[in-house]
Amino acid sequence: MPSERAERGMDILRQINPQSAQALFSELESIAPDLSRFVAEFAYGDIYARPGLSLREREMITVAALTAQGNAAPQLKSHIVGALNSGCTEQEIIEIMLQMAVYAGFPAAINGIIAAKEVFTARKVNEAHPT
Amino acid sequence: MPSERAERGMDILRQINPQSAQALFSELESIAPDLSRFVAEFAYGDIYARPGLSLREREMITVAALTAQGNAAPQLKSHIVGALNSGCTEQEIIEIMLQMAVYAGFPAAINGIIAAKEVFTARKVNEAHPT
Amino acid sequence: MPSERAERGMDILRQINPQSAQALFSELESIAPDLSRFVAEFAYGDIYARPGLSLREREMITVAALTAQGNAAPQLKSHIVGALNSGCTEQEIIEIMLQMAVYAGFPAAINGIIAAKEVFTARKVNEAHPT
Amino acid sequence: MPSERAERGMDILRQINPQSAQALFSELESIAPDLSRFVAEFAYGDIYARPGLSLREREMITVAALTAQGNAAPQLKSHIVGALNSGCTEQEIIEIMLQMAVYAGFPAAINGIIAAKEVFTARKVNEAHPT
Amino acid sequence: MPSERAERGMDILRQINPQSAQALFSELESIAPDLSRFVAEFAYGDIYARPGLSLREREMITVAALTAQGNAAPQLKSHIVGALNSGCTEQEIIEIMLQMAVYAGFPAAINGIIAAKEVFTARKVNEAHPT
Amino acid sequence: MPSERAERGMDILRQINPQSAQALFSELESIAPDLSRFVAEFAYGDIYARPGLSLREREMITVAALTAQGNAAPQLKSHIVGALNSGCTEQEIIEIMLQMAVYAGFPAAINGIIAAKEVFTARKVNEAHPT
Repeated sequence: MPSERAERGMDILRQINPQSAQALFSELESIAPDLSRFVAEFAYGDIYARPGLSLREREMITVAALTAQGNAAPQLKSHIVGALNSGCTEQEIIEIMLQMAVYAGFPAAINGIIAAKEVFTARKVNEAHPT
Repeated sequence: MPSERAERGMDILRQINPQSAQALFSELESIAPDLSRFVAEFAYGDIYARPGLSLREREMITVAALTAQGNAAPQLKSHIVGALNSGCTEQEIIEIMLQMAVYAGFPAAINGIIAAKEVFTARKVNEAHPT
Repeated sequence: MPSERAERGMDILRQINPQSAQALFSELESIAPDLSRFVAEFAYGDIYARPGLSLREREMITVAALTAQGNAAPQLKSHIVGALNSGCTEQEIIEIMLQMAVYAGFPAAINGIIAAKEVFTARKVNEAHPT
Repeated sequence: MPSERAERGMDILRQINPQSAQALFSELESIAPDLSRFVAEFAYGDIYARPGLSLREREMITVAALTAQGNAAPQLKSHIVGALNSGCTEQEIIEIMLQMAVYAGFPAAINGIIAAKEVFTARKVNEAHPT
Repeated sequence: MPSERAERGMDILRQINPQSAQALFSELESIAPDLSRFVAEFAYGDIYARPGLSLREREMITVAALTAQGNAAPQLKSHIVGALNSGCTEQEIIEIMLQMAVYAGFPAAINGIIAAKEVFTARKVNEAHPT
Repeated sequence: MPSERAERGMDILRQINPQSAQALFSELESIAPDLSRFVAEFAYGDIYARPGLSLREREMITVAALTAQGNAAPQLKSHIVGALNSGCTEQEIIEIMLQMAVYAGFPAAINGIIAAKEVFTARKVNEAHPT
C-alpha cells in the first residue's frame, strides 16, 4: 500500500506528467521498483509538494538545471512536458534555454532547444491525432 | 562609448545587483575589460533584457543552474543577491536549492544552502549597519 | 518527533560520521532544517540503511563519486572520515582516488588525495590529543 | 611486442571484460592504437593491477563514478559487465545506482539503472542462446 | 538585416564550417531564430573574430573543451570538422583527445576519438563521392 | 631508479613548470608517491612527450579544458604558468578563457580570468623580487 508521501507525490505527478511517470515506473518495475517509490515519495511527495514555489516555477528551475547539466536528455524532455502542463508557455521554455547559454555555454542551450522542439512537435502531432 | 546593448544590460544590472557588477568590472578592468563588455552586452543586454520571463524568474533559473553545476560559488552568491533584489524571498531561494537535491544530489543542495546562508547573513549585517 | 526513517538514518550516521552530521545539522538548523531531515530520512534512512551493500562499500562508492565529480570538497572530506569509520583503510581510500585518475582525470585524483591527506593528518592530531 | 605493463593489464581485462576490450581495441586500431595501449598499460596494468582493492571493489567504484558523471554510457555498460564478471551481483549494481541518486541526483540514478537493465537483459539472452 | 557583428561571424563560419552552421540555423529557424543570431553575433562575431589566436588554435581549444566536457556530441563533431577546415590535421585532433585522457579521464578521450573517427570517415566518403 | 618514461616526463616538466611539479611531488611524497610517478610517466612521459603538438599547443588545450571544467583551480593555475613558460603570451591565455564563455558559460570564463590574473600578478612580483 503506498505511503501518504507516495500518494502526495503521485497526485503531483498526475498533474504535471502522468505519461512520463507511468512509463518510468513500468520501466523500473522489474529491476528497481524502490526507485519508483523514491521518485514518488521523495522527489514529488517531499520536495515538489512543498509550498513556497508554484509547480510552474518548480518545473522551470528543473528545466534550467537539466539544460545546464546537459547529460540527461530523457529527463529534460519529460520536464519540458511537465513545464508545459504546469502553465509554462513554449516561449518561456525557449527563454530558459537561451539564458542557459550564459551559464552553461551555447552547446547546452542548443541541445536544450532541440530537445524542446522535439517535445513541442510531438505534442502537436498528438493533439492533431489523439489516441 | 557604451553600445546601446551595453546600456540596456547595465540598466538591468543596476536593478538586480549593482555592487557585484561593479566589483566584477573593477576586477576585470586591468586584464580583460572586453569580458565586462560581453557581460553587459550579451548576458544582460541581449538575454536578461528579453521579454518572456520576469527578472525574478530569470534569477531563479540562474540560481538553480549554478547550484546544480556546483562549481561557481562567487557567481552563485551574486545571483542569490540578484534573486532577492528581483523579488524572490529567502524561502523561495531555499526551496530552489532543496529541489536541486533531486537533480544534482545532496552535496550540491547543501553547498547551495550554505552559500545562501552566508548571503542572507551578510545582508542582515549590512542592513543593521549601512555603510 | 523524528520519523522511524530518520531514526534509522541517524543510527547509521552515528556509526559512520557523527561529528560531520552534527556539524551539518547545526549549520542548517536556522536556515533549512528540512534538509537535515531529508539527509537523515532519505539519504541514510532510505538508502544507506538498505541491505545489499556493506556500509564500508557504500562509503567507498561515495568517495569515488565525490572524487570524480570534484566539486564538493566538504562532503568528500566527510565521507573520507565515514569510509575510515566504516572499515576502510587509508590505503584503500588512496587506491580509490588513484583509480579515479582513469575515469575523471589526474586533477580530480590529485585533489582527492590532497583532501584525504588533510583528513588523515587531522585524525592523527586528534588521536594524539583527544579533546 | 607488448610491454610487461600491457601484458599485466591484458590479463586483468581478460578476467573482467574481454569482449568490450576487444571491441574497443578493434575500434581504435585504425585511428588511435596508442590509446588502446594506454588503456592496457596505464588503466589496467598500472591501476587495476595494484593490490589494495579487489577487482570487484574496483569495478564497483568505477560503476559509481560513471553513473554519477552521467556522460559516458558505453563505458558505464562495459563496467556493469565488468562488475558482474568480477563477482558483483545484479542487486549490488542496482544498489550502487540507487545510492548515486543521493550524490548526483535522480536522473543519473535512473539512467544508470536503465543501462544496467539493458546489460542484464542482453546477458540473459546470450546465456539462453550462446553463440 | 544582419548586424555588422553577425556578418563578421558569418564570414568566419563560412571559413570553418558552413554546412554545420547552415544545418543549425535551419534547425533553429522555426523555434529560436534569435539563438542563431547570438551564435553568429556573439560566438563568432565577438569571440572567434578577435585577434590573438588563429582560427586553427581557436578550433583546437574548442575541441579540447568539448571532449573534456563529454556531453555535447553534435557540437564536438561540428568542431572536429571546423578544426580540419582551419588547418588542423587528423593526427593533431587525435593528439588533443589523447591528452584529454589526462584531464577528463579515459572515457572522455575514447568517446572523443570515436566521434573523430566518424567525422574522418564521413569526410573521406564525401571526398570520394562529392554531392 | 626512475623509468625512461619518468625521465622523459620530468624533462618536459622541467621545461614547462618545474616549481609546480616539485611542489606536487613533495605534497604527494608521504601519501601517494605512485601518483607522482604516474604524473611523470603517463601524463608527461607518455602524452606530453608525443610529437604532433607543440608544448605551447598542449598547454593551451589543457588551460581550455580546465577552464571549461571549472573545478580544479590549483591545476588551472599551474597550467597557466606552464602555458606562459611554453611560449604563450598573457593575451593568448585571456583569449582562451574568453572563448570558454561560449562553450562552458560566463562563470567559467570569469573564474578562469581571475585565476590568470592571480598568476600574472604573482609572476610580476617574483620577477621584480627574485628569490
